[in-house]
Amino acid sequence: MKQLINSSGQIRQQVLAGLTYTYNDTLTWHKQTGIVTKKTISKNKVVLISGGGCGHEPAHVGYIGENMLDCAVMGTIFEPPASSEILQAIEETYNGQGTLLIIKNFEKDLARFLEAERLAKAKGLTIAHVIVDDDCSIESGTLKKRRRGVAGTVLVHKILGAAASQGKSLDELQSLGEKLIPLIKTLGVAFSPASPIGVIPQQYELAEDEMYFGIGIHGEPGYRIETMQSSERIAIELVNKLKQQYAKKDLTQVAVLVNGLGNTPLLELGVFMNDVQQLMDIEDIQVVYKRMGNFLTAYNTNGLSLTLLAIKDDKWLDYLRIPTDAFGWR
Amino acid sequence: MKQLINSSGQIRQQVLAGLTYTYNDTLTWHKQTGIVTKKTISKNKVVLISGGGCGHEPAHVGYIGENMLDCAVMGTIFEPPASSEILQAIEETYNGQGTLLIIKNFEKDLARFLEAERLAKAKGLTIAHVIVDDDCSIESGTLKKRRRGVAGTVLVHKILGAAASQGKSLDELQSLGEKLIPLIKTLGVAFSPASPIGVIPQQYELAEDEMYFGIGIHGEPGYRIETMQSSERIAIELVNKLKQQYAKKDLTQVAVLVNGLGNTPLLELGVFMNDVQQLMDIEDIQVVYKRMGNFLTAYNTNGLSLTLLAIKDDKWLDYLRIPTDAFGWR
Repeated sequence: MKQLINSSGQIRQQVLAGLTYTYNDTLTWHKQTGIVTKKTISKNKVVLISGGGCGHEPAHVGYIGENMLDCAVMGTIFEPPASSEILQAIEETYNGQGTLLIIKNFEKDLARFLEAERLAKAKGLTIAHVIVDDDCSIESGTLKKRRRGVAGTVLVHKILGAAASQGKSLDELQSLGEKLIPLIKTLGVAFSPASPIGVIPQQYELAEDEMYFGIGIHGEPGYRIETMQSSERIAIELVNKLKQQYAKKDLTQVAVLVNGLGNTPLLELGVFMNDVQQLMDIEDIQVVYKRMGNFLTAYNTNGLSLTLLAIKDDKWLDYLRIPTDAFGWR
Repeated sequence: MKQLINSSGQIRQQVLAGLTYTYNDTLTWHKQTGIVTKKTISKNKVVLISGGGCGHEPAHVGYIGENMLDCAVMGTIFEPPASSEILQAIEETYNGQGTLLIIKNFEKDLARFLEAERLAKAKGLTIAHVIVDDDCSIESGTLKKRRRGVAGTVLVHKILGAAASQGKSLDELQSLGEKLIPLIKTLGVAFSPASPIGVIPQQYELAEDEMYFGIGIHGEPGYRIETMQSSERIAIELVNKLKQQYAKKDLTQVAVLVNGLGNTPLLELGVFMNDVQQLMDIEDIQVVYKRMGNFLTAYNTNGLSLTLLAIKDDKWLDYLRIPTDAFGWR
């Protein structure tokens, strides 16, 4: 896989420069750091911060905007930012209404964001967090659930972001997040592995006619390699596995997110969405909200993920539908 | 390159079904045809129609919406729709204000759209067309300019679409298009060829460390194969070649469109945009509008194109900036 970059040590600076140049009407980059903020941060609402490694674009910078995040803190490729930078972001955006961190469930992300939260608390700041663990993949040997934070994270950005704009308190947002997150389930499949040459090692190989179910967003292996199948067959595997995660009564109304991992043509996401629709119809599951596109990608991976959110409260739908100027979501 | 599809004969039906299911709040698909229209077509403005083969998603269905197209007519992959279907689209959307066809300059597209226009005229309908030929690539043997219609087409959709919404007549729109199009210039580069297996033959090969300047959007070869370079070097090549297409006095204010060909990570488009910005700064060319993303793709191609539009009239900027609900542009 070829890579269009300059020196790999400068990727973070260069991609943040490019993104914030393109969207300089809404975004401010705190140069030489991984911190990007909304141009103007409201004084009257809880501040929402997320982040992680680069290589997941448009996440998370693309979700900064009205009714979404106030700030994203980005590390180098596939590597979360340092605690010190997260702390700096917390302090620079602090408005006295409290700050909520939205953290993807990976060991390093947790360690760094929770350390920053601890340091912020020690300085007397009001701060809390939610941890997104929507991935339903399992480890192929142990059958242990992986529970990584993947594409469903952007639904959390949108729902909590809109709720924050409507004046919910830090406690209310945290409790909404904790209600919401267990109802978000994601499963991914890769047709070619993430291969950030010279940046991090490639973690698995796939033959020309193979695909891998249950992969992660940093090139982590999945639970089963199979011969490449039709879009319809892949949709059946993903929908079936996701369905099993829910009590039947929860699956009456759902939001559906078809997420390209970054190197997947929109044509194929369209074909796949059509297959998902048909399965939902057969299962009599009502799709009340749907999105399709590259939302949380895995640098240089050809593949996709499917996310379901069981809608338990109509208010969640309102939060999803309310417009935003965040460039990754609008 | 793996392909996530079902049977290749059904690609058009399946991708249109998936796209119009996802965006059924704004789009209507005339089932079993390649015709997609705006949910409600205004009676009080000129109707804008574009189209071409599938495989360029989000083009052109993604540009149907307020202040953009009223209708897109899509063929099978890399193959424009039949004249009879274009004629059907013209008749079904006809509102008495006249219809403008926006055609990409390819032999087959021209033949089919102009034949449909001829048939519509014979039926007494008021209709005109503009032909987009923004590609600056040359044939490597003859040095003949190719002048294909590529990514710049979406700028024409937006500017003419917004002008139509503001009540411009068919004549005025055609004349605006003819003023605008010569000031739009695009050049592309591929890192891997389009390879729609079993659909159309692959037209060139690239080694693991090679790239190809001046490629087309249907897998057509370019003008020069080189060893893969840094993003900065590629930006220099594209910007220099594009600059040469303009009189110096025209390049004071420009719009910039960085277009991914579909399999290119947004991270890389961001890095590339940053390099373009720096070159523009050095050249003292003011970038007054910029867009970055997958706008007009070439199925299964890893690569990108750069488009410049020399802004000769501030009204063009207004037309670019006015919001739309077209999913490929919003």
